[in-house]
Amino acid sequence: MYRSNTCGELRLADIEKEVTLAGWVSKIRKMGGMTFLDLRDRYGITQLSFNQELDQDLCDQANKLGREWVIQITGTVKERSSKNPHIPTGDIEIIVSTLTVLNASKTPPFTIETDTDGGDELRMKYRYLDLRRNVVRQNLELRHKMAFETRRYLDERGFLEVETPVLIGSTPEGARDFIVPSRMNPGEFYALPQSPQLFKQLLMVSGFDRYFQIVKCFRDEDLRADRQPEFTQIDCEMSFVNQEDVLQTFEGLTKHLFRSIKNIEIPDFPRITYADAMRLYGSDKPDTRFKMTLTEIKDLTPGREFGVFDSAEYVGAICAKGCASYTRKQLDELTDFVKRPQIGAKGLIYLRYNEDGSLKSSVDKFYTEEDLKKWAERCNAQPGDLILILGGETEKTQKQLCELRLEMGTRLGLRDKNNYKCLWVTDFPLLEKDEELNRFFAKHHPFTSPKPEDIPLLDSDPGAVRANAYDMVINGVEIGGGSIRIHDSGLQKKMFSVLGFTEERAQEQFGFLMNAFQYGAPPHGGIAFGLDRFVSVFAGLDSIRDCIAFPKNNAGRDMMIDAPSRVEQEQLDELGIILSQKKLP
Amino acid sequence: MYRSNTCGELRLADIEKEVTLAGWVSKIRKMGGMTFLDLRDRYGITQLSFNQELDQDLCDQANKLGREWVIQITGTVKERSSKNPHIPTGDIEIIVSTLTVLNASKTPPFTIETDTDGGDELRMKYRYLDLRRNVVRQNLELRHKMAFETRRYLDERGFLEVETPVLIGSTPEGARDFIVPSRMNPGEFYALPQSPQLFKQLLMVSGFDRYFQIVKCFRDEDLRADRQPEFTQIDCEMSFVNQEDVLQTFEGLTKHLFRSIKNIEIPDFPRITYADAMRLYGSDKPDTRFKMTLTEIKDLTPGREFGVFDSAEYVGAICAKGCASYTRKQLDELTDFVKRPQIGAKGLIYLRYNEDGSLKSSVDKFYTEEDLKKWAERCNAQPGDLILILGGETEKTQKQLCELRLEMGTRLGLRDKNNYKCLWVTDFPLLEKDEELNRFFAKHHPFTSPKPEDIPLLDSDPGAVRANAYDMVINGVEIGGGSIRIHDSGLQKKMFSVLGFTEERAQEQFGFLMNAFQYGAPPHGGIAFGLDRFVSVFAGLDSIRDCIAFPKNNAGRDMMIDAPSRVEQEQLDELGIILSQKKLP
Repeated sequence: MYRSNTCGELRLADIEKEVTLAGWVSKIRKMGGMTFLDLRDRYGITQLSFNQELDQDLCDQANKLGREWVIQITGTVKERSSKNPHIPTGDIEIIVSTLTVLNASKTPPFTIETDTDGGDELRMKYRYLDLRRNVVRQNLELRHKMAFETRRYLDERGFLEVETPVLIGSTPEGARDFIVPSRMNPGEFYALPQSPQLFKQLLMVSGFDRYFQIVKCFRDEDLRADRQPEFTQIDCEMSFVNQEDVLQTFEGLTKHLFRSIKNIEIPDFPRITYADAMRLYGSDKPDTRFKMTLTEIKDLTPGREFGVFDSAEYVGAICAKGCASYTRKQLDELTDFVKRPQIGAKGLIYLRYNEDGSLKSSVDKFYTEEDLKKWAERCNAQPGDLILILGGETEKTQKQLCELRLEMGTRLGLRDKNNYKCLWVTDFPLLEKDEELNRFFAKHHPFTSPKPEDIPLLDSDPGAVRANAYDMVINGVEIGGGSIRIHDSGLQKKMFSVLGFTEERAQEQFGFLMNAFQYGAPPHGGIAFGLDRFVSVFAGLDSIRDCIAFPKNNAGRDMMIDAPSRVEQEQLDELGIILSQKKLP
Repeated sequence: MYRSNTCGELRLADIEKEVTLAGWVSKIRKMGGMTFLDLRDRYGITQLSFNQELDQDLCDQANKLGREWVIQITGTVKERSSKNPHIPTGDIEIIVSTLTVLNASKTPPFTIETDTDGGDELRMKYRYLDLRRNVVRQNLELRHKMAFETRRYLDERGFLEVETPVLIGSTPEGARDFIVPSRMNPGEFYALPQSPQLFKQLLMVSGFDRYFQIVKCFRDEDLRADRQPEFTQIDCEMSFVNQEDVLQTFEGLTKHLFRSIKNIEIPDFPRITYADAMRLYGSDKPDTRFKMTLTEIKDLTPGREFGVFDSAEYVGAICAKGCASYTRKQLDELTDFVKRPQIGAKGLIYLRYNEDGSLKSSVDKFYTEEDLKKWAERCNAQPGDLILILGGETEKTQKQLCELRLEMGTRLGLRDKNNYKCLWVTDFPLLEKDEELNRFFAKHHPFTSPKPEDIPLLDSDPGAVRANAYDMVINGVEIGGGSIRIHDSGLQKKMFSVLGFTEERAQEQFGFLMNAFQYGAPPHGGIAFGLDRFVSVFAGLDSIRDCIAFPKNNAGRDMMIDAPSRVEQEQLDELGIILSQKKLP
């Protein structure tokens, strides 16, 4: 045994005990004839004490140690004269009697502390050192706990975790697949799954009834801050259920996680339809930690020769409480904000409802005080409030107002990371039209069932068909989404035809699922959570990278192991593939 | 809600209750004016009863149903007149009042029963129907339970499950990697991990202290019955431990699994060194459900002009209790058995120790009764026993005797699948010599630490160096293996040099690990279990395929989804790869 205790567990009750500890040298301080050393492991920090007068040799040894050396010591637990209230072991220290160096260390390229001096690139290259930092390790501990508690909750409710294959077939639909050449089947490729969607539906056909899996999925997409080429899903499916059963089960899971991990009781989740979410928040993943909902005022704007609003399909406003006193500079900042290319508004109209009850807007030359009063009333504004208004094409403008709303929420401190607001968004449209290609795509995926009452619209007005689809949203982040599936092969065929698949194409790509559906598919539905995002929300992180042990950068590279990389010619020969010279850099 | 109860839960206590069930039609029997129908779901089977006299229409509906149709019924629970003691719901039946067809089914290509009439190929193509069979589903339920209980045990002991990447770099050492072309880095490839070995060691360098992961691993090897291109490991690593700590922890895990899942108390595992295992069983994964150990008798054989033994490096025997009465035919069968190409013995010598005390052998013309007596004594044979003897090169002959021993064990019914004998095999050789290439390879992997006392032999006699490596064996199956790792970068360099790596090559392949080791690596070690094999042993299966939901065949194909497959030219162009015409079929 290398140790009798960890560096995080000794307390006053252990005084006078003889102990053996092992860990990393975190700090060394010399004071007079004393040397104090912080010994660190995953569990905490314990102070070691060396007294020159008691043992000169040992003290000399301690003085020769460097940061991040790995040592083992034995000694006696003593009460500290000056206690450290910031750490759980702060009441005690170890008077060391023997010291063994288990491994030396070079000086690390950055300090192993919460606020490190390592830049992002350096930390990724030396990720094994970055992972020594408490903040990073705690994120991974949280991830472990969330995965474990998820499994416990689902196991208790009869869900079986079934592993589905990683080497599957490629489907041209959806995002780009990573593909894997097969040596045993030259010219053919496996694909890595974007999700186990088809397999979990097959498991329902097999009668598994309640399936889940915490599983890696893959997408060869251009990366953004919150995307990784490999990511983890909590993938779930149930048979003989309707939408209500699924929502109850996974609302329960989320409440369980908040309760067991953060000791927070979350009330029943409010539900909002997709249409209402867009109307009130301009988003299908509204941040409901604060209200400031969108108000349409288009009908209050015409007839005053203001071209911007007159030509707009939609005019909408948000009301920022207590912001009437915003300065010119602050208003200019907001105007610049909405004009950013990624938001794309042309300008911002404001209306101040001053404390004295007077109204002042940037469109005073077009609108009377009477007009503006109506706007303020519609927005439920009070004296002291600031109304911000955008006009244009409906959906685009709603999205811009959404961004502006989030920005105001942030400025007003209404988006506290420790305040959790969960909700369900329901009744998503089944289809989404690609105007350029003039065809419909499945908004969720081609197996999502339409609402029975909307099925007749599949022919007459496909865009208006609502799906039995739902998203779980926490604090403006889409944590999970799912749907009730089509289990009738006739309806599935209809769906493929609406999506513009020829029968052969549908057969080629999804034939095995459609065949399976002919042998007694039960009604079923499910949901998939993005574990990375779920953990990020729990941890209050801005990027999912911080809860992934070994993430890749925006070019899909692992900086630490330097992957991807060239492979040996022999390996390519065996696979029967040749590198195209055109593509090589 | 589609159901108030499952098909497995109703009992006499539920009599007169109004229930709703949903499931698959498993059997239909007509008797007089009655129709009986077995309704099946994952949880069991419930008998439904329809009476022509009570409701002709409903009975007609029931008679039109087919096998594997999905239906929903409501009805009243009644006591059965003729009970079925073979199923838990056998005391009751449902008098059906309403029947809804949820989905029809074509006639399945094979029967959904324990003993199905579907051949292997048909079952794999229609795996979603095969999975409806109780026996197959039960294997996957067992797999779920084993994984869950493993997580529970390890979580309780402070192990953190950390996900390591699936898209990593290729290492030419070891088995062949599957590789994945990178679109964002043309000409470069990711590789799929054969194990998370390097990452788990890096996590130890990071101070994670106790890591585990139940994780998919990949090997592009030619496949055998018990190999799959993707397989699942229970991968574990601990810091500040010696071999004893690791063995205790994972012996504990195994006992926990037997206790919690099979309600079996396993005593402390015996331990045997690799050398003893080879000497006594001719195998590094001995089946210790029965004794019949190997006895060397070479020293008792010379001087009698029997060339086969005189020229043999090794002569060994096993003693089969009570088999002296084996007929000529039985002995011929055994001779044929050892002469099979995959075993490769030239012949088999037998010695009968007859019940009357007389001795009769196939080498009577060379050896006196006195000689044979000595052999029998050495083998602890009793009257009635049969001694089987092979001679030749030591290791080869021991392995042949191992096969013969297992064959005899099977013939004598000594290998009961419900009798579990676990053990540790320790002190494996560190290195293995490839005589053809005249170089040493790591028997386990290049990070395995030699026993400290054997380190001097690294220069003088590398083949004799023993490693701190161990395997867990259950009933002759290697369930897991691991080692204490080298944590000293100097010793690691030495090891690479013994393995014939140039310094550049070592740096290129394992540079990031060797670099990491310079920043304070703790002493550490671990183990990895093959989950597929572990489940197979628990389930008493002959092939790991039966505990995998969607396995691949021996050509690495998924017959159900027909993967791997061609991909579109566009996809290859994006990746900058061209298919070599030479390789295409």
